[in-house]
Amino acid sequence: MKNIANHNGGKAWSDRFDKGLNPFIEKFNASIEFDRELFQEDIDGSIAHVKMLAQTAVLETDEAVKIEQGLEEIRSDIEKGSFDFGLDSEDIHFAIEHQLIQKIGDLGKKLHTGRSRNDQVATDIRLWLRKKIDQIDSLIKHFQLILLDQSEQYLYTLIPGYTHLQRAQPLSLAHHLLAYIEMFERDRERLSEIRKRVNICPLGSAALAGTPVPIDRSYAAKILGFSNISQNSLDAVSDRDFAVEFSSASSLIMVHLSRLSEEIILWSTQEFSFVQLTDRCATGSSLMPQKKNPDVPELVRGKTGRVFGHLQALLTMIKGLPLAYNKDFQEDKEALFDIVFTVTNCIQAMTILFKEGLEFSSDSLAASVESDFSNATDVADYLVMKGVPFRQAYQLVGSLVKDCLNEGILLKDVTLERWKQLHPSVSQDIYTKISPENVVASRISQGGTGFERVNEQLKKWRNKLQD
Amino acid sequence: MKNIANHNGGKAWSDRFDKGLNPFIEKFNASIEFDRELFQEDIDGSIAHVKMLAQTAVLETDEAVKIEQGLEEIRSDIEKGSFDFGLDSEDIHFAIEHQLIQKIGDLGKKLHTGRSRNDQVATDIRLWLRKKIDQIDSLIKHFQLILLDQSEQYLYTLIPGYTHLQRAQPLSLAHHLLAYIEMFERDRERLSEIRKRVNICPLGSAALAGTPVPIDRSYAAKILGFSNISQNSLDAVSDRDFAVEFSSASSLIMVHLSRLSEEIILWSTQEFSFVQLTDRCATGSSLMPQKKNPDVPELVRGKTGRVFGHLQALLTMIKGLPLAYNKDFQEDKEALFDIVFTVTNCIQAMTILFKEGLEFSSDSLAASVESDFSNATDVADYLVMKGVPFRQAYQLVGSLVKDCLNEGILLKDVTLERWKQLHPSVSQDIYTKISPENVVASRISQGGTGFERVNEQLKKWRNKLQD
Amino acid sequence: MKNIANHNGGKAWSDRFDKGLNPFIEKFNASIEFDRELFQEDIDGSIAHVKMLAQTAVLETDEAVKIEQGLEEIRSDIEKGSFDFGLDSEDIHFAIEHQLIQKIGDLGKKLHTGRSRNDQVATDIRLWLRKKIDQIDSLIKHFQLILLDQSEQYLYTLIPGYTHLQRAQPLSLAHHLLAYIEMFERDRERLSEIRKRVNICPLGSAALAGTPVPIDRSYAAKILGFSNISQNSLDAVSDRDFAVEFSSASSLIMVHLSRLSEEIILWSTQEFSFVQLTDRCATGSSLMPQKKNPDVPELVRGKTGRVFGHLQALLTMIKGLPLAYNKDFQEDKEALFDIVFTVTNCIQAMTILFKEGLEFSSDSLAASVESDFSNATDVADYLVMKGVPFRQAYQLVGSLVKDCLNEGILLKDVTLERWKQLHPSVSQDIYTKISPENVVASRISQGGTGFERVNEQLKKWRNKLQD
Amino acid sequence: MKNIANHNGGKAWSDRFDKGLNPFIEKFNASIEFDRELFQEDIDGSIAHVKMLAQTAVLETDEAVKIEQGLEEIRSDIEKGSFDFGLDSEDIHFAIEHQLIQKIGDLGKKLHTGRSRNDQVATDIRLWLRKKIDQIDSLIKHFQLILLDQSEQYLYTLIPGYTHLQRAQPLSLAHHLLAYIEMFERDRERLSEIRKRVNICPLGSAALAGTPVPIDRSYAAKILGFSNISQNSLDAVSDRDFAVEFSSASSLIMVHLSRLSEEIILWSTQEFSFVQLTDRCATGSSLMPQKKNPDVPELVRGKTGRVFGHLQALLTMIKGLPLAYNKDFQEDKEALFDIVFTVTNCIQAMTILFKEGLEFSSDSLAASVESDFSNATDVADYLVMKGVPFRQAYQLVGSLVKDCLNEGILLKDVTLERWKQLHPSVSQDIYTKISPENVVASRISQGGTGFERVNEQLKKWRNKLQD
Repeated sequence: MKNIANHNGGKAWSDRFDKGLNPFIEKFNASIEFDRELFQEDIDGSIAHVKMLAQTAVLETDEAVKIEQGLEEIRSDIEKGSFDFGLDSEDIHFAIEHQLIQKIGDLGKKLHTGRSRNDQVATDIRLWLRKKIDQIDSLIKHFQLILLDQSEQYLYTLIPGYTHLQRAQPLSLAHHLLAYIEMFERDRERLSEIRKRVNICPLGSAALAGTPVPIDRSYAAKILGFSNISQNSLDAVSDRDFAVEFSSASSLIMVHLSRLSEEIILWSTQEFSFVQLTDRCATGSSLMPQKKNPDVPELVRGKTGRVFGHLQALLTMIKGLPLAYNKDFQEDKEALFDIVFTVTNCIQAMTILFKEGLEFSSDSLAASVESDFSNATDVADYLVMKGVPFRQAYQLVGSLVKDCLNEGILLKDVTLERWKQLHPSVSQDIYTKISPENVVASRISQGGTGFERVNEQLKKWRNKLQD
Repeated sequence: MKNIANHNGGKAWSDRFDKGLNPFIEKFNASIEFDRELFQEDIDGSIAHVKMLAQTAVLETDEAVKIEQGLEEIRSDIEKGSFDFGLDSEDIHFAIEHQLIQKIGDLGKKLHTGRSRNDQVATDIRLWLRKKIDQIDSLIKHFQLILLDQSEQYLYTLIPGYTHLQRAQPLSLAHHLLAYIEMFERDRERLSEIRKRVNICPLGSAALAGTPVPIDRSYAAKILGFSNISQNSLDAVSDRDFAVEFSSASSLIMVHLSRLSEEIILWSTQEFSFVQLTDRCATGSSLMPQKKNPDVPELVRGKTGRVFGHLQALLTMIKGLPLAYNKDFQEDKEALFDIVFTVTNCIQAMTILFKEGLEFSSDSLAASVESDFSNATDVADYLVMKGVPFRQAYQLVGSLVKDCLNEGILLKDVTLERWKQLHPSVSQDIYTKISPENVVASRISQGGTGFERVNEQLKKWRNKLQD
Repeated sequence: MKNIANHNGGKAWSDRFDKGLNPFIEKFNASIEFDRELFQEDIDGSIAHVKMLAQTAVLETDEAVKIEQGLEEIRSDIEKGSFDFGLDSEDIHFAIEHQLIQKIGDLGKKLHTGRSRNDQVATDIRLWLRKKIDQIDSLIKHFQLILLDQSEQYLYTLIPGYTHLQRAQPLSLAHHLLAYIEMFERDRERLSEIRKRVNICPLGSAALAGTPVPIDRSYAAKILGFSNISQNSLDAVSDRDFAVEFSSASSLIMVHLSRLSEEIILWSTQEFSFVQLTDRCATGSSLMPQKKNPDVPELVRGKTGRVFGHLQALLTMIKGLPLAYNKDFQEDKEALFDIVFTVTNCIQAMTILFKEGLEFSSDSLAASVESDFSNATDVADYLVMKGVPFRQAYQLVGSLVKDCLNEGILLKDVTLERWKQLHPSVSQDIYTKISPENVVASRISQGGTGFERVNEQLKKWRNKLQD
Repeated sequence: MKNIANHNGGKAWSDRFDKGLNPFIEKFNASIEFDRELFQEDIDGSIAHVKMLAQTAVLETDEAVKIEQGLEEIRSDIEKGSFDFGLDSEDIHFAIEHQLIQKIGDLGKKLHTGRSRNDQVATDIRLWLRKKIDQIDSLIKHFQLILLDQSEQYLYTLIPGYTHLQRAQPLSLAHHLLAYIEMFERDRERLSEIRKRVNICPLGSAALAGTPVPIDRSYAAKILGFSNISQNSLDAVSDRDFAVEFSSASSLIMVHLSRLSEEIILWSTQEFSFVQLTDRCATGSSLMPQKKNPDVPELVRGKTGRVFGHLQALLTMIKGLPLAYNKDFQEDKEALFDIVFTVTNCIQAMTILFKEGLEFSSDSLAASVESDFSNATDVADYLVMKGVPFRQAYQLVGSLVKDCLNEGILLKDVTLERWKQLHPSVSQDIYTKISPENVVASRISQGGTGFERVNEQLKKWRNKLQD
């Protein structure tokens, strides 16, 4: 038997190579500095692989047990911080395999039987992402509940509703907050769909073509809690669709958070004064002693582009790559890690903001809805009920609003006589109809801001979220 | 009753306004040049709305019938090309309403009762996108079938499999093509999930708050084939998640097409020569008489960034917008229209390319798989079966490959004596084991390239796609 | 001499091809529908090329004259709308060459001597972009002047200055507007730098390698007004850096416009009321009669992502393309065309908005700066002048602001006695120091908002922009 | 004098606040974990600020000296690793100010006189980026020199030139490599232009409005080596154009690196075999013993999207932000840091690759250019010289190529008789004319691949780069 020497440091792939890697290139290529994040999943995956190899008699049972014990020791070492992730190990997979061989000797060299790093890393990242999806889903749900608490508290609090950031029609504040619960529910729905596609096991696809080693992929997949195995080995090792999908869903989560952030920023201006920031989530200035800044929503808004950027990075990275694995894929990890970190932190920060970082200013809100023309549509609707075709009613009211603006009065200040000039069908009840409370209460169409409708929604969400 | 004059051209919103729009701004604001694409959906939506208003007795039955007839006439005018889309109509919604009033008089002014453009346009775009999703799904499925036809033809044709664009292990060409069928199946799965969220009816959410007009949203939704109605009016008019989702799913379709394109471009080089382009899909040069260029896959690859760009545009557009509708949303349409146009054309072009634009060069492919070291893993696997730990077997083979390269021979040229020097367990059957056919045939793990496995997949897909 | 038949419609590249293109593919490949935008530049380029060929005696002088006449006729036909751009001409270059041969016979076949479409299209797009850069520069400069007009008008009008959208320190409104003039000046600076790199002539690089035909590239470049010729033929035909650079510079223009838009949108809310929209640039709602919406700045803000998207599309398109020309490059044109269209329109729309679309509400502005704590820093600065270390002064004032907020008073309401309690050095002049006018006037550091400083800037810009 | 207590940990902005920050929010807001990267620049900026305050007599000279000494001690502590960056310090600016006060007592509280973190951080990041731009410029120049070394070595080595990845015309390998030197020269040109705009000093703009403290901004700017000071305080603290510009220029650097990477990946395939990878920059597989993968160019290509993503993130972050500083800006730093890290590493890795990681295979290259139709244009050009109009010559050659392909011969195999049938003007010299060497040598148009022209370029670059 040929005697082989090892020319290339600890690299597993050394014997086809005469010379070592250039040290800069070694560091440039290595992913160990960030893919150590996957150590739990890598060990879980290896243990499942080894159990499976024992099951199909590729390994003896006691071999499998010893390898598993070695891997569990390594897990424990890493958890305790006593594991040396050497840069020369290139990545977490080799680092662990290398250490296993150190620990249990030549038996460790059997670990990689019938698999490749290509299917191994795809398995690791799917296991990791599955876990993170579940965590994010939980965090969103918790945030929905906090929003729901607030919504329930503010059913009868009115807030101006805006389109084009111009006062449009008054709303129940609960209705406004519920709109975000809807958005976050869609986010959760998307995550659950992506989770299905993440939860497919590529292990056993080997480098790209499968393996002649007798393996039982379904057995390993089951141990790892996957719902199914991938059906094409080439696709399995070169599929990063799930990373893009997750980034896209995360981008939408950030879009929703950024919209809510924008509103909090607006509402906490002196001009709007709809909310007051507490000291728990606001910060000051280094120069201006009076400042109290809404850093949390600003930072969340600012981090939105970061997630969009990762999405773009991943798409660009995969575009036009021939099958199967290409080293470019190594770039998927830092993007995913940072997306999860960012999204997780942003949801938590916004949750805290809504729990203890802001207070709605009921007086300001009440004053606001009394002092504008956001009841103009109700006059038009009033006329419609009296038989005036909508577009004509609308023109009449538009004309009246213009006159009121010139005179500096509101619609509630218009005399009954003048109302009748506008249209003879108007009577005294117009004043009741256009009070903010009635304006809101009257919108009882399904999904509308009428208190009745909003209350139904509050109950529905309480049932749905509180399990 | 106040006499109202119309100061602002044909604008429906004129009577609060004294002066007309600046003509440049009028053109800048108008969407009629592109949103006419939605005329069918706009008319469908209006008809459903009117039927519903009759159902809830807001309109008399004969009023509804007359409005519907007017709308159908307008549809017919547009289809015949005899409809004047005036720029001064601002958008397709006003253009049609305005024309309706021209046609049927004041009754037309009742059309807009209980709705707003905000819910109207959201309804239109959802109807339009639902239809387009179905078309794209059909086109992908057809393309999968064309790929399947080719796959069935080439089950026993071998092609080098690559990782890092270096020869890795030989494959069944069918297996390679099936990888794309998998990808496109995921694309279809995603489209079907998005379709569910597109297929929600926002009509009746009015401007942002619902309406006091007695409407029956579910009735209208049913007429339009929606599966449900939206639950929060604010969310309903300011939700463009579905546009982002669709753009993201489309980006992945383009990613898959771009990867396949890249492979066709590579395979049709003189260096690879795995496929020959026919004259049906290749073009020449203006200067170089010998050229035959793979324009179709190049153009598809080139158009990928275009779809990514639209995705980014939509995300950027929505980020940080306060509720509810903002004019920024007008930008959703051109992006969606161009994505649908691009994706649709690219799928069709690639389908034609596979139908009549290329021919696999079986001789070239056969020669390729005979002339490399892509059977090296099989030697390692051979040794593993003889009891050598994998990592050790791997090192032995790596060393042998290096020597062969130096000597300019292949593994099949290694003498039995030398094999035995490598490891005493090697015997004569090594030569059979490492022939390309056996190498491929042996990979019978689930999802592997072994002919048996691939054949199962071919049958599965034939059943699945051929209905 | 061999008799050749033409098998492929009007395609110039037909005789190496037996069969015609698939009609769908023909349309898919063709760029004639959009690259006709380049007809002027294409004709200019061809005329320069022909003059040069005459100069180097490749063509007879009278041949060149006849070709030039033919090309001028075609230009005139296109301008009059009587030119038939047939789809079967593939692109504007072939369309014109084909028509030239129709017009002047075989002599037309000499036009393409010593060049290729690859250098031709690169020349066309550079000529076109050079012109557009000059137009955009003019439009920005005009907008700067309009902003300067307003700035001069509002030197002594105060406006709250914000950080984190919280009141920070009052400003001269002129100072605020001048910030945008600075931004737009940087945009112009960038455009001028990009123009230098656009203004390099690739003509004569031929397909990728230059040509053996005796040509004089500098001669043709000079006719076309280029400042230099490209130095490497491969680079010349595959360089699209200038398209990316221009898209990036355009993205920054849009960023600046979007920030200004956001401010106008905020300022025109009922809550801020710093500006009133006139009827010339505002639009109404289809449903709500009172609405007056800031569509122009919203639409400009919304179009920002569109330009970002094109930038991303172009980067993605070029990434990883091997040298030299690839068909993917065809995608550069629609992106550039739409960027120019979008940026041009947005600058013009914003210019009109500032000219006739809005009015600053001096009363509202004056009231705003009187009613907040934005003079708190001035108290700290006051104490610093009295010898209190800044951080200590800052803490003292912070504490006082907190107390005032609790008591519902402003700093101007604090009694002298209490001031002296805060710090014994405070005297009566504190009240003058913290009046908004003095607060603004005092900031006379270079670039600060002190009226003196701002006035210098106004003069500088008037001199610079008014030539 | 009021006694003030500190309620909020070490926060400088505490006394307007009663309660401490939520601990999660404190961590969420803090930038100290990454902005410590700026410590040198922060200290440099503070020292310049203090010297300036002494110069304008705001500080006593000995106060300034003591503060400076304190800051230098802190610098030294950080360099030695003995500085405690407490999370509760929020950011590097407060961490240093806080430590200064610890070290030198109340005098340290004067450091922040007349400035704000807003102008301070803008100064820091500009100083940092200026330095990094210079480093990147150096690295690119070094890479250009390495490419030039190779170019000089391979002037007479031929390589197939491609368009559409199809063989087009043969090239001097030097010409091909010089194309990249051109691209990188443009990158350097762009960096130098951006450097001008980075090198503007915002210090003294204070929070947003300037300061009443008598400062001399030009004095501080001069100490820091800035070429000018910013002219508008609002713009100065809210301008991140330079970050976007730098990201865009970096994206183009990555585009160029990605194109070169793609070519190396192609050239090192078994199919092309134009280069051999050495062991110094290639890596193996965990499974396949024969593999030698071009990880370096793959990883560089893969990292391209990452830089595009950061560009998009920055654009998205800034879009639509009202003046002046917003917390969103905090997101600029990690993006810039990672871009610089990525670009720097990629250039270095590619430089090493060209120095020791690959070898051109002259035999393969020579064989390639002999075996194709890439001399077909030369036949057309030959006929043109004999008076045949180009388009006609082109058609004749196209037809001949088609026949040769059918017969399996090359143009050099065509008999003279047959040449004369094609066109009577062809004579014996055709065989010389179409040899690859002559084909290349003949392209002596400016910028063409003719050896003469390329040699001029080699000399020009040697002069330019070697100073």
